[in-house]
Amino acid sequence: MINNKAIIILSGGMDSVTTLALAKDKKLDCYSLTFNYGQKSISEIHAASYYSNKYKCIEHKVFDINFNDFTNSALTNNSMGVIDDSKKLIPATYVPMRNIIFLSIACSWGENIGVDNIFIGANAIDYSGYPDCRENFLDAYEKMINLGSKTGSEGGKFNIFRPLVNMSKIDIIKLGQSLGLDYTNTVSCYQATENGEACGLCESCVFRKNAFLNNGLKDETIYI
Amino acid sequence: MINNKAIIILSGGMDSVTTLALAKDKKLDCYSLTFNYGQKSISEIHAASYYSNKYKCIEHKVFDINFNDFTNSALTNNSMGVIDDSKKLIPATYVPMRNIIFLSIACSWGENIGVDNIFIGANAIDYSGYPDCRENFLDAYEKMINLGSKTGSEGGKFNIFRPLVNMSKIDIIKLGQSLGLDYTNTVSCYQATENGEACGLCESCVFRKNAFLNNGLKDETIYI
Repeated sequence: MINNKAIIILSGGMDSVTTLALAKDKKLDCYSLTFNYGQKSISEIHAASYYSNKYKCIEHKVFDINFNDFTNSALTNNSMGVIDDSKKLIPATYVPMRNIIFLSIACSWGENIGVDNIFIGANAIDYSGYPDCRENFLDAYEKMINLGSKTGSEGGKFNIFRPLVNMSKIDIIKLGQSLGLDYTNTVSCYQATENGEACGLCESCVFRKNAFLNNGLKDETIYI
Repeated sequence: MINNKAIIILSGGMDSVTTLALAKDKKLDCYSLTFNYGQKSISEIHAASYYSNKYKCIEHKVFDINFNDFTNSALTNNSMGVIDDSKKLIPATYVPMRNIIFLSIACSWGENIGVDNIFIGANAIDYSGYPDCRENFLDAYEKMINLGSKTGSEGGKFNIFRPLVNMSKIDIIKLGQSLGLDYTNTVSCYQATENGEACGLCESCVFRKNAFLNNGLKDETIYI
């Protein structure tokens, strides 16, 4: 880690908020970056704002990029349902190149403000089989970004930290709680209401619910 | 090449238009993708539209993404000049992560419409030392995108074609002319007027002018 600044890609869900709590615990000066990309669950952005304030991020940037203009996913297309029973390896909620684009905008911002450490809450376990959440992808991404950027070309290095990538949802919650994180205001549901109430049915809700239950923890999530 | 469809990242400059002419010469069905990213030279977009029509692209998509919101470059920041005398290896006109973001949006669109072949007119010779125009970066990008996408995960493959990467500007013009390409309406200038008139002074103008002159070719560019 070259300096003590970090950008946290912050969706407002459990994983990204745990990642922020972890970066703060490492005494890093945190900048949070949230994307308004056409997702159905706009309450995620309110959650990201809430935790950015709570963890005293130096800046919380919400960047607009409309994925609906060039792609198709159940997370952004109102005519597609988020509950996918197709048993495909990669479900309908996959958003093509989402993490690649998010990471690249984070690195671009980082190069501008002098931040080399990028944190992403990507998680390959207990998750939906998204290819852009896997460790081998993140390794390849780090290599690529250092070849394609001024930072990497001039002897610096972007570090793409993915502290949760191989953790189970249960262990993520345990970690968050050991850091004093209160998950109540995080939004995991793919189709949460504007107030952040969860459907309780989509894959993301099911993972979250099971993790709390299996952990013997009280689930403070408000369901519709 | 799995199928005969291709997305061409088309800025409207000499290199990307030559790349489009080359893809058409290979009998590919072409989709062109242009970015309105806050660049000073908006006439580039008109040029991209002109050549998309001329080369009968099936669709020409102009995608808005405002780099000014997260980065700083002389190409997008009105308070910075595009003529860089600093002799730095990477000049002020470098836009952090530009090609990475452009390629990723192209791949996302490609996955949506069933196109695996992405063409970019990146060029490492006679150019400004941009790290995201070099072959080793493009190789790393191709590897990364196939690890992080549904296409790559399900046995397909994105091909990132960069036919001009190791060609001199003179050879690019020779190639274009052998394909019958008329460069008159391409826009290379970093600060062209709305009508596409070039300054004649910025690095991009100088490369273009010299290439025409050294080739014994008439330069049809209209200078201010």
